Amino acid sequence: MPRPAATRRSDEAWGPRLGRVGSWGRAGSDALHLARTLIEELQRQGVPPGEPLPDRGPVLPGDSRLGDDARRALERHAVTSTDPAVRYAFSYGKSLPDLLAARGQLPDGIDPVDAVVRPTTADAACALLASCAADGIAIVPVGGGSSVVGGIEPLRRNPDQPVVAIDTTGLAGVHGIDEGSLLAEVGAGTYGPRLEQELGRWQLTLGHIPQSFEQSTPGGWIAARSSGQQSLLVGRIEDLTAGLVLATADGLVTVGGLPAASEGPSLLEAILGSEGTMGLITSATLRVRPRPARMHFSSLVFRSFGEAADAIRALVRSGTRPAIVRASDATETAFSVFGALGDGNVRAVVERAARSTGYDEAALVTCISAGGHGEAQQVGSAAEALLRSHGGRPIGSRPARKWYASRFLQPYARDALLDAGYLIDTLETSVRWSRLERLHDDLSNALRAALGERSLVACHISHAYPDGASLYFTLAAPVPAGGDPLERWHAAKQAAAAVISAAGAAASHHHGIGSMHADILGQRIPDGPARRAHQSLRDALDPTRTCNPGKLLDGDVAGTPVNRVRLQAPPPGAR
Amino acid sequence: MPRPAATRRSDEAWGPRLGRVGSWGRAGSDALHLARTLIEELQRQGVPPGEPLPDRGPVLPGDSRLGDDARRALERHAVTSTDPAVRYAFSYGKSLPDLLAARGQLPDGIDPVDAVVRPTTADAACALLASCAADGIAIVPVGGGSSVVGGIEPLRRNPDQPVVAIDTTGLAGVHGIDEGSLLAEVGAGTYGPRLEQELGRWQLTLGHIPQSFEQSTPGGWIAARSSGQQSLLVGRIEDLTAGLVLATADGLVTVGGLPAASEGPSLLEAILGSEGTMGLITSATLRVRPRPARMHFSSLVFRSFGEAADAIRALVRSGTRPAIVRASDATETAFSVFGALGDGNVRAVVERAARSTGYDEAALVTCISAGGHGEAQQVGSAAEALLRSHGGRPIGSRPARKWYASRFLQPYARDALLDAGYLIDTLETSVRWSRLERLHDDLSNALRAALGERSLVACHISHAYPDGASLYFTLAAPVPAGGDPLERWHAAKQAAAAVISAAGAAASHHHGIGSMHADILGQRIPDGPARRAHQSLRDALDPTRTCNPGKLLDGDVAGTPVNRVRLQAPPPGAR
Repeated sequence: MPRPAATRRSDEAWGPRLGRVGSWGRAGSDALHLARTLIEELQRQGVPPGEPLPDRGPVLPGDSRLGDDARRALERHAVTSTDPAVRYAFSYGKSLPDLLAARGQLPDGIDPVDAVVRPTTADAACALLASCAADGIAIVPVGGGSSVVGGIEPLRRNPDQPVVAIDTTGLAGVHGIDEGSLLAEVGAGTYGPRLEQELGRWQLTLGHIPQSFEQSTPGGWIAARSSGQQSLLVGRIEDLTAGLVLATADGLVTVGGLPAASEGPSLLEAILGSEGTMGLITSATLRVRPRPARMHFSSLVFRSFGEAADAIRALVRSGTRPAIVRASDATETAFSVFGALGDGNVRAVVERAARSTGYDEAALVTCISAGGHGEAQQVGSAAEALLRSHGGRPIGSRPARKWYASRFLQPYARDALLDAGYLIDTLETSVRWSRLERLHDDLSNALRAALGERSLVACHISHAYPDGASLYFTLAAPVPAGGDPLERWHAAKQAAAAVISAAGAAASHHHGIGSMHADILGQRIPDGPARRAHQSLRDALDPTRTCNPGKLLDGDVAGTPVNRVRLQAPPPGAR
Repeated sequence: MPRPAATRRSDEAWGPRLGRVGSWGRAGSDALHLARTLIEELQRQGVPPGEPLPDRGPVLPGDSRLGDDARRALERHAVTSTDPAVRYAFSYGKSLPDLLAARGQLPDGIDPVDAVVRPTTADAACALLASCAADGIAIVPVGGGSSVVGGIEPLRRNPDQPVVAIDTTGLAGVHGIDEGSLLAEVGAGTYGPRLEQELGRWQLTLGHIPQSFEQSTPGGWIAARSSGQQSLLVGRIEDLTAGLVLATADGLVTVGGLPAASEGPSLLEAILGSEGTMGLITSATLRVRPRPARMHFSSLVFRSFGEAADAIRALVRSGTRPAIVRASDATETAFSVFGALGDGNVRAVVERAARSTGYDEAALVTCISAGGHGEAQQVGSAAEALLRSHGGRPIGSRPARKWYASRFLQPYARDALLDAGYLIDTLETSVRWSRLERLHDDLSNALRAALGERSLVACHISHAYPDGASLYFTLAAPVPAGGDPLERWHAAKQAAAAVISAAGAAASHHHGIGSMHADILGQRIPDGPARRAHQSLRDALDPTRTCNPGKLLDGDVAGTPVNRVRLQAPPPGAR
């Protein structure tokens, strides 16, 4: 095997990545403006800032645990680095605990990976996995690194085990298009914008646009069962994935590739959602579609969140298919759905309309359609008419346009809020329609009780299906002075888990399990045949348990993951 | 545990089932008329009858292998029968080999099950499985018993192993409706007509209508990844199944129940398609919808099958959603799509239209829409307009109405054709659009070569998706005098398997694998991590390998299954 042009110089392979570890990324002026407005608004509504949590600079790791022999073995297959700055850059996702740990704000932080490797072929990925399996090294697949649930938290079976991050972004690009079948073969590590840009050359689009779009990849979307903002039109990543290739230590596994089949259990659906625990997804066959020529924007105000939810339920069951439909509860509506906050005109429109319905309960609905010339307008008008017939009052297109234009800004604004002393996070679930309103109320109450009176708990429906919908919460509270900055966060997550579990709702609708929700999933799937089935599947594909320790149902790791939500209240006196 | 009111009298629990083992069922006058017309037409087109294969009467089994102790153990949990007539009734599906074996027309027939049990609760199903697992007894779950791929063929690990059929039709009925979420809890053994009748009380429908509808159940649909005629509107059974309960020897496994979630691999999608090899599906949560008030029927003729396929592709990618769209190739069109054969008027309309396009290649398209008042008409008109814009010539609604009215008759007619000396069967697959026309041509040629010049090979597209479609073939040929009546069938299936495999097409689109396609699937998934993953999943849920031996990837059975397609040509001189 030819030795690749291995380089240990961080800046060649990884330069662009090194600057944004303790934050979502470099915020532009729009994001900073949004953050300032949000902080003003939080204060106006009685949520004061607390102890600031600024970035104290990179928490550079000490010596790598990787031995020289093991390192040379990796270098045979891929560019490999043990540079502390590179290891630091690949050890944190974008969860709140990740950000705090990366900022040096957690006393027991994250123990970073011992090396980073960057394969550029699927065969090299297999060879790396085989090498790590043979040498007892754990691996963590890292694409865009945007997990907000500890999906890439480096965890070890024992404190001495080396952990290697496999950077998948060397497996990038659109490798082929079957125009007749509207299928695209894409590298698992292709960032969202590059993927859409390359597909654009054929006038095609995937249309999978999660909020992490700029910083995430198909490998991550598939591994986490992601859902994009346009799920109503294009489906979830499960619907968009026709097939995939998974690298394992024992070779490549190719699954799927058919429009539909009756060929036994779906291994594709077993690897979808495997969160890096079964191997490394190297490429996927994705269902693409013609790029829409036009979009249509509608905003409506309803008397209550419940009324808005009923209208959305009716819409998703109709033959009319907008790309996006969202309903904000009263709190989120009062915040003009966050993104629009900085726009005084939009804000005035929403407030006036909301006040006319009885301000306290008003719910803003955003409906966006996409399609060919004429089609977007036609679908959008039909959707708006349906929403009006269910009680919605149209307030023009501007709030929806503003939300659309600012839809990627919120995570950048989060950084500024942490700097200012606000604990800020999101939390999401899904449930059948008949339990949705009750769950919204119960979760809102439980979260407010846990976060304290001076907190923000706002919610919207972000994804809707004929039988149910998702609820997406945004939380903000002052960081208490002294002590564990995550104490209230743990209390809120634990309270939410109890309510979600009692309601038969999802541990996650689209963020995933990672290390954060592992105990919650474990409680849902206790010892028994179902758990054994999950475990056996993983054991078959990763018998050495090399891949992404501590995620999903795997609790067999050293120490306590920074991201893990503790389900039991800590004993009195314990931190 | 109280002893159920066990009865060994066949007629109480199983009476209605005993009469139709070697046939699809009791044919009505419409089916008999269709059969007569089909036979006339086959002869007119140069396909003469061969050696008749009449039903020689029940092939009643000898002594049951079930010991007294094991039998008493079963009787503690469910009505149990070792009556030869009952055992005979539960030992055959509806494949061509099954029918011939049941008719006493195969020298090496099927060795029937040793008992039949009929649990009426999920707990009883678990107890039965545990009892069989402990006693080394194999089980075969049997719902409607309509498998055409040997899905319920009773197979044994060794010649002395007892096999018990578990009749699931005691687990029947709609147990609950969540109207707000459009979800129905249904017993796995509910026959299609009863299910739709019970849902009708709420003005709801599932809308899953496979051709086997009258003789099949949700448990079977789910186990075999079934697809109904209205899949374009309602989806496949995978889309309709929100959750299910699986009885295993180690207890019940409850999976799914959410509209969508990001909670790791989907165990639901692993049990979907498990064909009884992981346990027994006892109930399911199904996505239902308001019963449509109206239907709309269109028929169009295209210049060629390829042009019709292109039009259907455009239709399924549009926002217009009819319930059913089918395209018949030239041969099937010449037969007026079989069902309409007996209607001289319809036939004249189709022939006239076809001739006007150049008779040899004309393709008939059937398009049927369903929906509320006004909606069916609106969707139907839009679909027809789209098909016209792609070259279709409308020929009124009558051929489509006739097909719809006769859509369940064809399997009944098959029986009369066997009686008359025609080997008749169907075969289906799916593939991406870019390979569809080529696959149609290659499969047609391979099947004609295998069946001989005096044969019928007709095809239609029955299910369409944005990235591909299914091809459904109907085959007829004279039964050769003397020798193995299945010899040509084996040659045809083997030839088809080679073409399908080379094209990257599905071993089955909706019939399943069963014992028939097990070697084909095995060839597709050779030893390696993917195969181990499949096997491990099964081992986790059925560690004693009690459930449905010899199906899917399981080749570890005594003897050669009657249904198994032999992939290797037999050695010279062998039968």
